[in-house]
This record gives sequence, structure tokens and C-alpha cells, in this order.
Amino acid sequence: MSLDAVLAQIDTTLPAALDRLMALLRIPSISTDPAFKADCDRAADWLVADLQSLGFDAAKRPTPGHPMVVAHGGTGGPHLLFYGHYDVQPVDPLALWDRDPFDPQLQDTPKGQVIRARGASDDKGQLMTFLEALRAWKAVHGTLPCRLTIFLEGEEESGSPSLIPFLQENAAELRADIALICDTGLFQDTAPAIVTMLRGLLGEEITIHAANKDLHSGMFGGLARNPIHVLASILARMHDDTGHITIPGFYEGVSELPDAIRAQWQNLAFDHAKFLGDVGLSLPAGEQDRTPLEMIWARPTAEVNGILGGYTGDGFKTVLPAQARAKVSFRLVGTQDPAAISASFRQWVRDQLPADCTATFTEHGGSPAGVMQITHPAFEAARAALGEEWGRAAAYVGCGGSIPIAGYFKTHLGMDAMLLGFGRDDDQIHSPNEKYDLECFHKGIRSWARLLEKLA
Amino acid sequence: MSLDAVLAQIDTTLPAALDRLMALLRIPSISTDPAFKADCDRAADWLVADLQSLGFDAAKRPTPGHPMVVAHGGTGGPHLLFYGHYDVQPVDPLALWDRDPFDPQLQDTPKGQVIRARGASDDKGQLMTFLEALRAWKAVHGTLPCRLTIFLEGEEESGSPSLIPFLQENAAELRADIALICDTGLFQDTAPAIVTMLRGLLGEEITIHAANKDLHSGMFGGLARNPIHVLASILARMHDDTGHITIPGFYEGVSELPDAIRAQWQNLAFDHAKFLGDVGLSLPAGEQDRTPLEMIWARPTAEVNGILGGYTGDGFKTVLPAQARAKVSFRLVGTQDPAAISASFRQWVRDQLPADCTATFTEHGGSPAGVMQITHPAFEAARAALGEEWGRAAAYVGCGGSIPIAGYFKTHLGMDAMLLGFGRDDDQIHSPNEKYDLECFHKGIRSWARLLEKLA
Repeated sequence: MSLDAVLAQIDTTLPAALDRLMALLRIPSISTDPAFKADCDRAADWLVADLQSLGFDAAKRPTPGHPMVVAHGGTGGPHLLFYGHYDVQPVDPLALWDRDPFDPQLQDTPKGQVIRARGASDDKGQLMTFLEALRAWKAVHGTLPCRLTIFLEGEEESGSPSLIPFLQENAAELRADIALICDTGLFQDTAPAIVTMLRGLLGEEITIHAANKDLHSGMFGGLARNPIHVLASILARMHDDTGHITIPGFYEGVSELPDAIRAQWQNLAFDHAKFLGDVGLSLPAGEQDRTPLEMIWARPTAEVNGILGGYTGDGFKTVLPAQARAKVSFRLVGTQDPAAISASFRQWVRDQLPADCTATFTEHGGSPAGVMQITHPAFEAARAALGEEWGRAAAYVGCGGSIPIAGYFKTHLGMDAMLLGFGRDDDQIHSPNEKYDLECFHKGIRSWARLLEKLA
Repeated sequence: MSLDAVLAQIDTTLPAALDRLMALLRIPSISTDPAFKADCDRAADWLVADLQSLGFDAAKRPTPGHPMVVAHGGTGGPHLLFYGHYDVQPVDPLALWDRDPFDPQLQDTPKGQVIRARGASDDKGQLMTFLEALRAWKAVHGTLPCRLTIFLEGEEESGSPSLIPFLQENAAELRADIALICDTGLFQDTAPAIVTMLRGLLGEEITIHAANKDLHSGMFGGLARNPIHVLASILARMHDDTGHITIPGFYEGVSELPDAIRAQWQNLAFDHAKFLGDVGLSLPAGEQDRTPLEMIWARPTAEVNGILGGYTGDGFKTVLPAQARAKVSFRLVGTQDPAAISASFRQWVRDQLPADCTATFTEHGGSPAGVMQITHPAFEAARAALGEEWGRAAAYVGCGGSIPIAGYFKTHLGMDAMLLGFGRDDDQIHSPNEKYDLECFHKGIRSWARLLEKLA
């Protein structure tokens, strides 16, 4: 009955666990913006101290960017590596937040209590579910459940530039029997889910240069090239009328869904009208010959995530700008090669430039898609543990977001990974008013305790 | 020989005239940005005081926006109204300025001395040429040359929202024999020019709304509508492959150039390769069946002056934004109707929206094109005065920029207007590092003295 004791410990100490999460959420660890470098460092320090309080040999490990947190503890098999990330997305547009994104608060909502803050769901709340499960376990048993390595990253939201070198340099130290990655969600808010298919990501920034300075649109308008027009025309041609992407070679490595997976997904009865309706939309906007679930889990995308050119302040300025730029990201599936797509995209842009325009490019990281091997016994143990805690069977699902770490663990450490998490679709991750349901935090901790009981 | 005395007075007092201009340039009177409202007011106060020092009955006149400066002085015919504007364009991108835009400096350049500051050429330096000519005249003669009304606006760079009501309410007070408008330039830097054809302007801001909040491009990408794509596609369709504008009815009221004007413009031998080459361009980008001079003087345009959507800061954010927006301006010619084009543009945008997107619009002012009547004797007097000062015949030219005031004087006061000025193509008006050549300031003052001698 030691599991019951651990679960009871989790239930009675939940307020203290929540206080710890609040403390971590107060640190604005935005990794993509250099202005928050010291805050990222502070978040790492906080986690090192917390892991040390659990008996881990924990340290902040420097990288050229933000530090990694690595901790070792426990004995006995299996050797589990747990991965999460302590960095968070930027908060703009700040005006759309109901409160300070870094002043977390427990709020009552019609759907229950939520933890409101940037990073509550992505990924601080999720990573703390595992640490709190260990804390309860140790309070009951006096020891950690098995040999454990904790590996927490601070650059997940900014393309993970330091990750691969760090894995390569520390492969022997980090290699475990399996990696547990907690950065995903429940399916349709209620069904526990284990992700076996992840999209990759390529980020490109493109700047179109025309005149060597901003021009007066009266003096030059109608004669001089406008780089906003050039950029808009190129971006408009990135998709054809049926939603397919027109960049040459883009679909190389994209394969059709296996029949077994297609059948399983059909059983999931995804309600795309509700999914879109919840955010004020109605029409699937992607490849028109694909199902909505394929569009978000199994098909590649090309999306403009930001565009800027000319005068965008209050009022009006009749300017023909010297340049215009856009941030474009590609979600990748199957064996699509980020490097090949980057090269093809850049050539495709250059091929469309008028003779007196140039384009410059900045890469913002790239990673291929991941397809999980589900042969390790941890998968079936997790399905059972999740099913017991949530009262319905766990599903193997896809994930439209890009969590390249699973692929990196396989490539650089030869280690399989299992992704499970407790986020909900309405968590507003990457958006204003991000939240994490208190129920998800609580049952997430209990889920890990159940899984550790089965594996230890 | 009183003209010689006035010209000599101008020459010997040039340093003091320059000091006065510098004082006016130090006031950051950016009319489009509400943050500079007090500065606009301060510029008006400065001009009132300067006009009073010349013996004018001068006052700052309130409007719902920035104040007008109106002054009356002198006796005898003809009754001349002089118009200029004391407001200036915004200064962004500030990083491209070599010095503080509102800390004016006289600088040596390979082409001679220049006055460097925002507003040096557009329009503070130009309007001061007239006031300095009056100052020299008064120093020599003891009186002003004739009956004069000075009318200085503070909203020219932000669509002149208060202008028409002010003209209507004060029509009897402002009506003169002819208006002199100093907000234009020399032709190809050397030939004095009188503008007889001005393009109109319509400013529209369009916002495309898709989801009701920003979305994660992993979770929603490929399924949810991206408003940046919608906006880019619409803007890309605004011109066809030959540079013509595709908005229905856009060309109504656009007529072919009269043969006499076409012949005169051919004689001007406009060097478009140099004009474009000076700003780093090479190819005329507008309607491909038109000459470069037609493109900038006699043909309408549709230009995106600003575009903004999604995340545009450092790094990358994988967001599908809730909205994207653009500022679009149209230069108008002939009898094109700004209201009709606004309505047609908005309907054309709405017709292209996917079912789950909406568009909202903000108008930023509109004015039709102006075609001057050159029958008033002031035109030939000005041609002669300018020819004497600059050593070559003055030309009747077009102007691609929009100076709607001439049309308003005609419509609301029944008064003809004559536009002449001393700016040069490389003055970088509306751009970083705006300047006004000291030679233009000096000879501009002398030009007005010569014209006043002929008219008084």
C-alpha cells in the first residue's frame, strides 16, 4: 500500500507544491529575448536548489546560451531520464493579458481552478509534476524510487541552439534506459495521451531589401520598388489555392499515414468544429484534401509567424520603406530534411526577386520530425498508470508542435523517449493569459507516482 | 535699385536667418504622434512671435487638432496669401539618423553646406524663406510690400483633418488674390519649377481578424487560418503583372496627359536611371506601359506604407496571430474620387476574405488631385523672378506628392494657388537624415524678394 501512502502525501501537500510552482513562475525566464538572460539563469538556480533539497547531486551547467540543469540521484533500475524546460515564451501582446504574466495567481473559473501565468503549462507546471511526485515518494520511502537523471533545458522556446553540442559532450553521463518527456497534453482535455508522432520545425527569417533608404511615397511612389509588395507577393505564392505548399521539393520525405494509425485517429472522433470554434474560427484552412487531425498532426506546414515593414505606429506615414521582413516557420513530418528545405526555400525566394531587390536570411533553428518506438515496456506501464489515474484508456497520439528533444535523444544518445503530459487545449500556451489547470497539476503528480511505482 | 538693397540685406543677414530656422527646427513638431502635441503647439507659438516681430497681427488659432497660425499685415495690392506647414514627419527609424533629428546642424558636404534636421526641407526651411524675404524687405523699406495673409498649418503630415472646416469657417478672412504655397522643389536640383499638377492622396488602414486570440503554430498550424497569409494574398493581388492596379473602378477619372504637357516633359530630359540609382534602385517598378515621369507625376498608385503582424522582436515565436494589419495609400490623379476609391477598396478586400475572417478599416484622410490654372499674372511674374535668380528658365512641372491645400483653396475659397519651392531630390524628406541646402535657403529667400518686387 505504499502507492496509496505516496498518493495521500501528494494530496495533503498540494498547497506547498503549488507554492513552489508559483515561485518558479515568478521568474520571467524568456529565453528568446536577451534582456531576460539573468532571469533564465535565476530559474536554473532555483531548480538546482530544489533538486538538491530532494537529495540530487544537481548543478547548473554552462552553455554558450542559457544553462542546462543536470541532476543525478537514486539507485536501482531502471535508469530513467526526465526532461523538461524552464524557459518560457515572450509575453507580447502584453495588453491582452488580464494580469502581470509573471505574477502567478490561482483563479476560480467555470471549469475549475487554474494557475494563471506565462509558463504555467509550458513547461514549468508540467516539469514540476515530476519533481513533486519524487518529493512525495521520498517523504514516504525515504529514498528516490530508482536511478534518476533530471535534465532541464533553458532554450526550448528559442530553437535549442546549445542542446545538440551539450548532448554530444555529455552523452555518457546523460544516457539512461529511457527518457520521460513532459511537455505535451491530454487529448481533448480528458483522455491521457502518449505522443508517438511529433512534427519537426524549421524557422527562417527573410528580409527583402530594395532602395538604400526609406523613400517618400509621393516623390518615388509608382516608380520605385516597394519591398513590402515584393515580400507580400512571395509569401502569397507559398501556398496554392488548395493549401499545398509550392516550394520545390518541400514534400520529399512526407509519407501517408499507416492504416493502423489512421483507424486509431478516426476512433478518437476529433471534433474539429469545436476545436476551431473555441478560438473563433470555423473552416479548416490547410491542405483541403486532408482531415483536420492530419492537418495538425501528420502534415507539414509553412506559416508566417511575423511580418514587419514601413511605418506601423499611430497615424500614417507615406513612406516606401527600404526593407521588409518576415519570420516564417515550417512544421515538418516524416523524414523531411530541415537543411534541404531551408536551402530550397531560400533559393525559391531569390528566384522571385526583381533585379533591384536582394534578400537576406537568418535561421532560427531546425529539427526533423520524430516518430517514437513504442517497444520499451515503459510505454505499456505508462498506459496502465495513466488509465488508472484518469479513469479512461490512454491513447497513442500525434502532436503538431515540435518537441525535437525526443529525436535528439535517439540520434545522439541512442535512447528512446516517451512523451506524456497533462496540458489542455485551452491552456493558451504561447498566447496571453496562459494557464494550467490545478486538476492537471494535481493528477499529473499522481500519474507520475503511479508510473514510478510500476517501473521501480 | 531697392531690389538690390533688399537682396544685399538678405545676403548680409543670412547668419541670423539661419539661427532663426535652427530655433524652429529644434521643436519636434511631429503632428501624427499624439506624444508631440505640446511641441506642435510650441512651434505655432514660435511662429506667432516671429510674425509679430515683423509687424503682423498674428495669432494661434485653435482647431480640434493642432492649431493654425494666421497673420495679417501690409497694405496695397495685390493681396497675397502665403501657405506653409510647421509640422514634420516622424523620425523612425531613429537608428538610421547620423545625429539627433531635432538638434539641427550646418554641415559641410561634397555638394556644399546643408542644414541637417527633421523638417529642414519639409517644410520649416521652405516656409522661413518667405518670412526672411519679408524681414529683409521691411528692413529696407520700413513696411511690408503689399497686403499679406500668412497661413501656416500644423497637420499637413497627418492628413489635415482640421483644414477644410477651418477654411470654411474663415473663408472671408483668408480669401486673397492668389495663394503662394512653398512646399515643393527644384527640378533635378537646378531648374526652378512651378508645380501645375499635383497628385491627391487617400490613406487606408486595414486589419484582418482571424482567430479570437493568438494561437500556437504547432497546435493549430495547418488547420487554423493565418491572417498574415490572408493579408499578404490580398496585397499581392492589388497589382497585376504589368503594374496596373486591380481594384474595380480605380482608374475612373484618370485621363491621358495633354500633348503639350507631354512634349514639355520630354524636353525636361528626366534622367530616371540617375533618379533611381541615387537611392540604390535601377528598374521603374510601376505601370510598365508608362514613362518614368508619368509614373511619378501623372499616374495613380497603390502602395503599402506599413505592415505588421505576429511576433517581430528578436528571436522567434511560433505564433499564429489573431490579426494582421497594413497601412495602404493611394496617390490620385485627374478627377479620381477619394471617397469612391475608399469604398471600392474596402469592398474589394471584403470580397476576398475567407468565411471565418473579417476586416476592419480606418481612414487616414483623402484629397483629390489638383490641376492648377496658370492664367493669374503671378505665374508669369514668378517664372521671370525665378529665372533671374537661378539663371535658367522656370518650368511648369508635375509633383508626385500630395499637397491638397491648393485644391482646397480653390474649392473652399475660390482662390487660385501657385506652388513653388526650393527643395532638392536628395533632401531625404520623410526619411532619416533630412537636410535643406544652405544655397536653397539663401536663393529661396532672394527668389521671393524678386517676386515681391514684381508683384507689389
